[in-house]
Amino acid sequence: MRLLEEKILLEGKVLEGDVLKVDCFLNHQMDVPFLAKLAKDIYAHYKDCGVNKVLTVEASGIGLACLTAQFFNCKMLVAKKGKTSNISNEVYTATAYSYTHQKENTLIVSKQYLSKEDKVLIVDDFLANGNACLALIDICKQAGAEVKGVSCAVEKSYQNGHDALVALGLDVYSLARVGKMENGKIEFVK
Amino acid sequence: MRLLEEKILLEGKVLEGDVLKVDCFLNHQMDVPFLAKLAKDIYAHYKDCGVNKVLTVEASGIGLACLTAQFFNCKMLVAKKGKTSNISNEVYTATAYSYTHQKENTLIVSKQYLSKEDKVLIVDDFLANGNACLALIDICKQAGAEVKGVSCAVEKSYQNGHDALVALGLDVYSLARVGKMENGKIEFVK
Repeated sequence: MRLLEEKILLEGKVLEGDVLKVDCFLNHQMDVPFLAKLAKDIYAHYKDCGVNKVLTVEASGIGLACLTAQFFNCKMLVAKKGKTSNISNEVYTATAYSYTHQKENTLIVSKQYLSKEDKVLIVDDFLANGNACLALIDICKQAGAEVKGVSCAVEKSYQNGHDALVALGLDVYSLARVGKMENGKIEFVK
Repeated sequence: MRLLEEKILLEGKVLEGDVLKVDCFLNHQMDVPFLAKLAKDIYAHYKDCGVNKVLTVEASGIGLACLTAQFFNCKMLVAKKGKTSNISNEVYTATAYSYTHQKENTLIVSKQYLSKEDKVLIVDDFLANGNACLALIDICKQAGAEVKGVSCAVEKSYQNGHDALVALGLDVYSLARVGKMENGKIEFVK
């Protein structure tokens, strides 16, 4: 999506440690009118897939997921990050290692809100190694829910998340695919 | 707001420990089409106040804050919860004690995204003792930003958050004001 690529080039910053800082519009400050355009684009891609629930993980994907659910006129479900000690048998859980925060998170979804009736679209802000998305897919599998696709705003295409999700047969739609970040320069996958 | 009161009576549950569980539509699972109606109501209340930024705190207020910012056609800013050890001089911080999680959180906002040009509307899911809102107000004060109001979906009116905010001269608009929860029954303030 050309619009997001232009926004990243204009407002994003490449920092040390393979960090693409886009917190001026995507996750710390959210440029909501702009994010609504991204959500509309996600909707256009999946609108004929029968999606009835959007799933994300707290906290930085919630804004985009919420706006996307608005286009689908459906509910949105936020997987909580918790500690294994809190887990009851009323929830589905899966673990995801976060390279950003260098720790293992347990993702938690109440069994009440996800079932085999659900056709789920997973939405997040970033796709890198895909650990968070794979954990959400695991949770959907436990619930018997069908994953109709995975859509993230910014993909680091040089990491293995995209391919891991495609290998599962999923429709993966990233709005901007970063192929390379070097010396402060960003190159997108054509 | 009658609509939210009805939703709470229909779908909410009173649990032990003064907990009003509304995670089926407000924070874990978000009934986005319904939350958009709440956001529209918040917009109607503050639309003439010159609001140019919505401020919330991660994670459970993000959905409603995002939808509210959409009505104002403005940006939304999420105060992060962090540890004091991460603090740089590029951020505003304030501490808020969370009774729900029984711990002190440091709320963090980048100085880049909040300034004296900003007319801020604070939005959150719950207002109880007001600690999170008071910390956000403190952050706005540090930035020289003007707080135009505080709007939360559900207020526990028998706790002191509402009065503490009104005492600061703020326009506080809660969409449902719970006056009493006893034996699983909920009474609203008229």
